[in-house]
Amino acid sequence: MTGVARGSAWPDLSGRVGEAGHVLPVRVYFEDTDFSGSCYHATYLRWCERGRSDFLRLLGVHHNKLADGSLTGEPSVFAVRRLKAEFLRGARIDDELEVHTAYGTFTKATITIAQHVVRGGERVFELEVQCVLLSMSGRVLRLPPALVALLTRG
Amino acid sequence: MTGVARGSAWPDLSGRVGEAGHVLPVRVYFEDTDFSGSCYHATYLRWCERGRSDFLRLLGVHHNKLADGSLTGEPSVFAVRRLKAEFLRGARIDDELEVHTAYGTFTKATITIAQHVVRGGERVFELEVQCVLLSMSGRVLRLPPALVALLTRG
Amino acid sequence: MTGVARGSAWPDLSGRVGEAGHVLPVRVYFEDTDFSGSCYHATYLRWCERGRSDFLRLLGVHHNKLADGSLTGEPSVFAVRRLKAEFLRGARIDDELEVHTAYGTFTKATITIAQHVVRGGERVFELEVQCVLLSMSGRVLRLPPALVALLTRG
Amino acid sequence: MTGVARGSAWPDLSGRVGEAGHVLPVRVYFEDTDFSGSCYHATYLRWCERGRSDFLRLLGVHHNKLADGSLTGEPSVFAVRRLKAEFLRGARIDDELEVHTAYGTFTKATITIAQHVVRGGERVFELEVQCVLLSMSGRVLRLPPALVALLTRG
Repeated sequence: MTGVARGSAWPDLSGRVGEAGHVLPVRVYFEDTDFSGSCYHATYLRWCERGRSDFLRLLGVHHNKLADGSLTGEPSVFAVRRLKAEFLRGARIDDELEVHTAYGTFTKATITIAQHVVRGGERVFELEVQCVLLSMSGRVLRLPPALVALLTRG
Repeated sequence: MTGVARGSAWPDLSGRVGEAGHVLPVRVYFEDTDFSGSCYHATYLRWCERGRSDFLRLLGVHHNKLADGSLTGEPSVFAVRRLKAEFLRGARIDDELEVHTAYGTFTKATITIAQHVVRGGERVFELEVQCVLLSMSGRVLRLPPALVALLTRG
Repeated sequence: MTGVARGSAWPDLSGRVGEAGHVLPVRVYFEDTDFSGSCYHATYLRWCERGRSDFLRLLGVHHNKLADGSLTGEPSVFAVRRLKAEFLRGARIDDELEVHTAYGTFTKATITIAQHVVRGGERVFELEVQCVLLSMSGRVLRLPPALVALLTRG
Repeated sequence: MTGVARGSAWPDLSGRVGEAGHVLPVRVYFEDTDFSGSCYHATYLRWCERGRSDFLRLLGVHHNKLADGSLTGEPSVFAVRRLKAEFLRGARIDDELEVHTAYGTFTKATITIAQHVVRGGERVFELEVQCVLLSMSGRVLRLPPALVALLTRG
């Protein structure tokens, strides 16, 4: 494993980057569950967004640097354009999970990323998500090559 | 429009059932947005779940009656099994939206439902979602014919 | 009852303004509950924020007009400064609730508002919340007299 | 620092217990923010609930063991009864925060806990929260002495 954040009192807070991509541990809290006893379906999307954000972070791409324009020259923000999700098993209160995020594949304006959530060795959720970079007025931006280079495996 | 709830001080609270399915109005509040200025992507899934729940409600299927077993004989709960979503435009604070939910198509154990969210005449989100009925232990149940009958158009 | 929104297909979407303040109906959905079977504690705060926002809306104060500066001359946003909450009974899936919001009391920079949530005739939640108006850089603004006039009972 | 969870690939996932109580690191993600650019007010309550849950966890009290009755003999769940909160500064996207949770003070049926959220050395949020233990039917339970013993400082 490489890419662990340095100098924090909490070295694992952003998960870890390895050969296959990124892993973020996640705990199931009250807020994630619903009256069925399992997790609310949109909860899995929140966890996957955390995984993508922390993967970006460990590769040097911070949302606040995108938003103030210091990273790519134009203030911008990542947005989800489409997604496909499979709910395989219900995660439950107190479960310890991992969000696995693979390196993305790129077109001029899109990043497509495969993610899954595991409990023990077992997959509970799978996601394929396509993201775009938007200007602050909501226009889809061409992905800056320097940004793509940061997000591409070594 | 038929199927409006009777006897409430708020006749539109659960939306309205018509020929094409169900419509639920939704307002964008602080809780639905994120720092990008638009709505958080999982917010659209929350709204669509409300649309499905209120459509069920106006057809006579209440979650609390499923959960206590009084509707189908076995305590049960609907769960999302898979979904595909397209995020077309960003909804913003104070927007007035409508969640449109079509009648579902059935297999022995699944319901597939098409939904979309509109602002003015413009689609901002599209969803296709497959749901199953789970026992309280998490087993997928065969859909009771009486339940399917309730959920099938006239 | 006065102050009902005109010209919408959904006349009650923002609730209603009366002598004592504002009433907003709220339905309990999956997203609001947790594995305990009752509603997650922060859910009640989301509902009360909706009540305050819709009360403001019916009095002519829209968040997007505050944010673009067209209402008070300076881009601004309301923020919660402090609150006290009592959780009296647990709301449950499918419950139909009302959020009651009283007219606020003002100092130069704060609004204090009493709210409660009822089910049938029974209170399930009480809130006292103090709000301030912030500039986009986070500075507390003196409340514009024109804004206070709008928010004060006729 | 004592009380660190053993045997996990993520030793800090539940935070750490020390003399003064418990500390949990929290990252600000998209889901936590709103269109104001800062965090939605109910977000701070979600973070504090995570802090309380992980403090309990490291002291040996798991929600799933309370819920199945194996911990106290009767299926039960913690619930918030009342709270007071101060919002001191707005946390923003990408911020790294810590939730500090002090040991509670007890009456026969209540636990009162002081919590705060810090960024760098600076407090952004303070909470005083009173919790009770509920039976699954919603009755307030007397706190089992064995449970109080677990939750009381060494």
